[in-house]
Amino acid sequence: MKAVNVGLLGVGTVGGGTLEVLRRNADEISARAGRTIRVVKAAVRDVTRARSVSMDGIALTADPFEIVGDPGIDIVVELLGGEDIAKQAVLQAVDNGKHVVTANKALIALHGNTIFEHAQRRGVMVAFEAAVAGGIPIIKSIREGLAANRIEWLAGIINGTSNYILSMMEAEGSDFDGALKQAQALGYAEADPQFDIAGTDAAHKLTILASIAFGIPLQFERVYVQGITAITLTDIIYARELGYRIKPLGLARRTAEGLELRVHPTLIPQPCLLANVDGVMNAILVRADAVGTTLYYGAGAGAEPTASSVVADLVDVVRAITTDPENRVPHLAFQPGLLAAAPMLSIEQIETAYYMRLNVLNRPGVLAAITKIFGDSDISLETVLQKGFPKDSDPESRSRSRPEHGKSNQRVTIIMLTQKTRERNFSVALKKLSQLEAVDDNIVRIRLENLS
Amino acid sequence: MKAVNVGLLGVGTVGGGTLEVLRRNADEISARAGRTIRVVKAAVRDVTRARSVSMDGIALTADPFEIVGDPGIDIVVELLGGEDIAKQAVLQAVDNGKHVVTANKALIALHGNTIFEHAQRRGVMVAFEAAVAGGIPIIKSIREGLAANRIEWLAGIINGTSNYILSMMEAEGSDFDGALKQAQALGYAEADPQFDIAGTDAAHKLTILASIAFGIPLQFERVYVQGITAITLTDIIYARELGYRIKPLGLARRTAEGLELRVHPTLIPQPCLLANVDGVMNAILVRADAVGTTLYYGAGAGAEPTASSVVADLVDVVRAITTDPENRVPHLAFQPGLLAAAPMLSIEQIETAYYMRLNVLNRPGVLAAITKIFGDSDISLETVLQKGFPKDSDPESRSRSRPEHGKSNQRVTIIMLTQKTRERNFSVALKKLSQLEAVDDNIVRIRLENLS
Repeated sequence: MKAVNVGLLGVGTVGGGTLEVLRRNADEISARAGRTIRVVKAAVRDVTRARSVSMDGIALTADPFEIVGDPGIDIVVELLGGEDIAKQAVLQAVDNGKHVVTANKALIALHGNTIFEHAQRRGVMVAFEAAVAGGIPIIKSIREGLAANRIEWLAGIINGTSNYILSMMEAEGSDFDGALKQAQALGYAEADPQFDIAGTDAAHKLTILASIAFGIPLQFERVYVQGITAITLTDIIYARELGYRIKPLGLARRTAEGLELRVHPTLIPQPCLLANVDGVMNAILVRADAVGTTLYYGAGAGAEPTASSVVADLVDVVRAITTDPENRVPHLAFQPGLLAAAPMLSIEQIETAYYMRLNVLNRPGVLAAITKIFGDSDISLETVLQKGFPKDSDPESRSRSRPEHGKSNQRVTIIMLTQKTRERNFSVALKKLSQLEAVDDNIVRIRLENLS
Repeated sequence: MKAVNVGLLGVGTVGGGTLEVLRRNADEISARAGRTIRVVKAAVRDVTRARSVSMDGIALTADPFEIVGDPGIDIVVELLGGEDIAKQAVLQAVDNGKHVVTANKALIALHGNTIFEHAQRRGVMVAFEAAVAGGIPIIKSIREGLAANRIEWLAGIINGTSNYILSMMEAEGSDFDGALKQAQALGYAEADPQFDIAGTDAAHKLTILASIAFGIPLQFERVYVQGITAITLTDIIYARELGYRIKPLGLARRTAEGLELRVHPTLIPQPCLLANVDGVMNAILVRADAVGTTLYYGAGAGAEPTASSVVADLVDVVRAITTDPENRVPHLAFQPGLLAAAPMLSIEQIETAYYMRLNVLNRPGVLAAITKIFGDSDISLETVLQKGFPKDSDPESRSRSRPEHGKSNQRVTIIMLTQKTRERNFSVALKKLSQLEAVDDNIVRIRLENLS
């Protein structure tokens, strides 16, 4: 089937990430979309500049309007940022019958109503998953995944810069200015950080979230906005002492009298998952009448996380314009002819770490014998902890122990964490271990994953 | 536009929840779907039995095959559970050209390959969001939201019963049998709990997740399965001491040599969000190459959470068979003509709780004067904490304090948490407070939300 031709407006951080992801995962992406997605033209500020990402096969132009007017282009991806040129370009693309994918939150929050009106009239899609919370598929989740629900409220950490600053103040005891400087040094905050720390960025995103959650037009001007600049370390510490953490929050809520839309630093209870979302990470908690509370967590910014959403929107558009409506999304995510026959590992072949608990006779040389077995099997021990025999918590293990006459019968518990090893290898060591006379045969073994 | 006619196979817990949600949120759901969704017929075991949910306008039959053969029905919702009859009914529905929505994980995990083959041939949709993790839109998120990514691994707490039992053992120090009995008493575990605690249920779900994540056919027989029955309180305590928590995990991972699919109790590091998912809640952590780590959290079972996914699938099918492909999903989730003009509250109208920090002169009667202001304003105080003046953490607040001659100049810090009140009301109290002579004018006020 014919490839879908994409025109890219802007090849900065997100544009470069988008090209990189489309290229690296080309096979998987076309197996999901059912067609090849090909970037054929890109608008850049300086066509002569060398770039870290390859522009092979992509025609360059300095004029975004050349792309939105090109009859060979099916989908325009707008990554210019800003409002004026982006708005003109998107409106022209739509009016020319092109589908649009954008990561521009200001554009959608401020001009979305106009843009969608044009798109509706012209019968094209305008997709904007990347405009809110970077790589988290929150627009899709609310708009489609929670379509059955009346949404009561949502609360989100939707500005990574602000979350990073407050997290650092707490983690390192630094003051606001110190944490901001650190964020700037790491590229998490702009040289002029106002847009993030004053709450404007979060307010753009909250505008969009509230609209899809409550079914209301976009209305940025109605959002109450307060930044994080007045938060001091003192209050972070007192809040913690009282069982709370201070997070930069965007809140949208239905009440009997009307809707609340507000962005401000907020104390939230520590046991709440949202209170544990740190650094530049984003998360959105959604309360809805049927499903209850759901949470969506991930990277809220960055080249490839944002590109992940841009490309997901591209795949959505391609699926919608290509496939029979009856087969919009392949059941198992990939086109049926393209399901892979990947080899599947048995449990003996997997690699994992282990927690072990053994009861052993408290005699000289026992620990050495145990650790030798692991050494011989090339298994590294991460932690070894020796405990007196637990009297209350696990009485049944005592009755299972083997009494031996004529020797010290005092038993101790040893807890060990291993580093990663192959399960087959570990099983062999475990067998040798259980054959040691001093080791009880009720060895507990639980797999351990660091999930990183 | 003509209503879409739905036939329901099974009106148990999830079936009842589905009818309830479709009825309660009928307006919102049709504003999202673009058409009315109407359940016209239901197959039940006993057509004479009284039900807690109204069956008005729904024809009843004891024969599921009457529904799958009914030419007036567009979509069949299969909520029978089990394998044999469900499989026959779904295959017949598909062969008759009907779209199918199912919550049946065993059916999809064990017979999905056959069912999807039929569906592909016949050009109909078979949707199964409700089969994995209840109300969490995880199928949609992986299949569509992460379509740009090569997925590296996923790890999920996908059996609420097992998670509840391990959580209770840890929280209450109970043994396995005690926690199981408690789960049974609360309806979180079946009278025969084997299916859940032996890991079979999680393995069904992992089979489905792995398939959509990696683009492989469903292959339940290749999953390594170990239940939670061998976990003792002793090991939960030791694991905690070492910085880990034991969670019932389903893991699917790509390695250089092949795929791992395994279900077993696993130690995971405490700071990991997944380690903090307790009780019957589910969560799935997905690692993908472009987006990095994302997490999806919510209720994994229950009538309405599962119904939330069933109805979302219904809306998806209706959108796909109804709308121009170009307009598959309304931009702002609701059909454009149906966007609401809900009143928006100003920040003065909202209700919230507050954290306050004041520096006051340490003189008799000051605290009484302060609390009187709140009492007069009908604001309840949740916590009042008096602190010596913080010397190190917030030196700038000292320099701002007003020296007064001839009186005690010793200052103390008071931290207060209020209960919820209207912001306008609070602002008035705050103003009165700042007019007290003994109170410094640098009062800190941060909003507090319990998010529950």
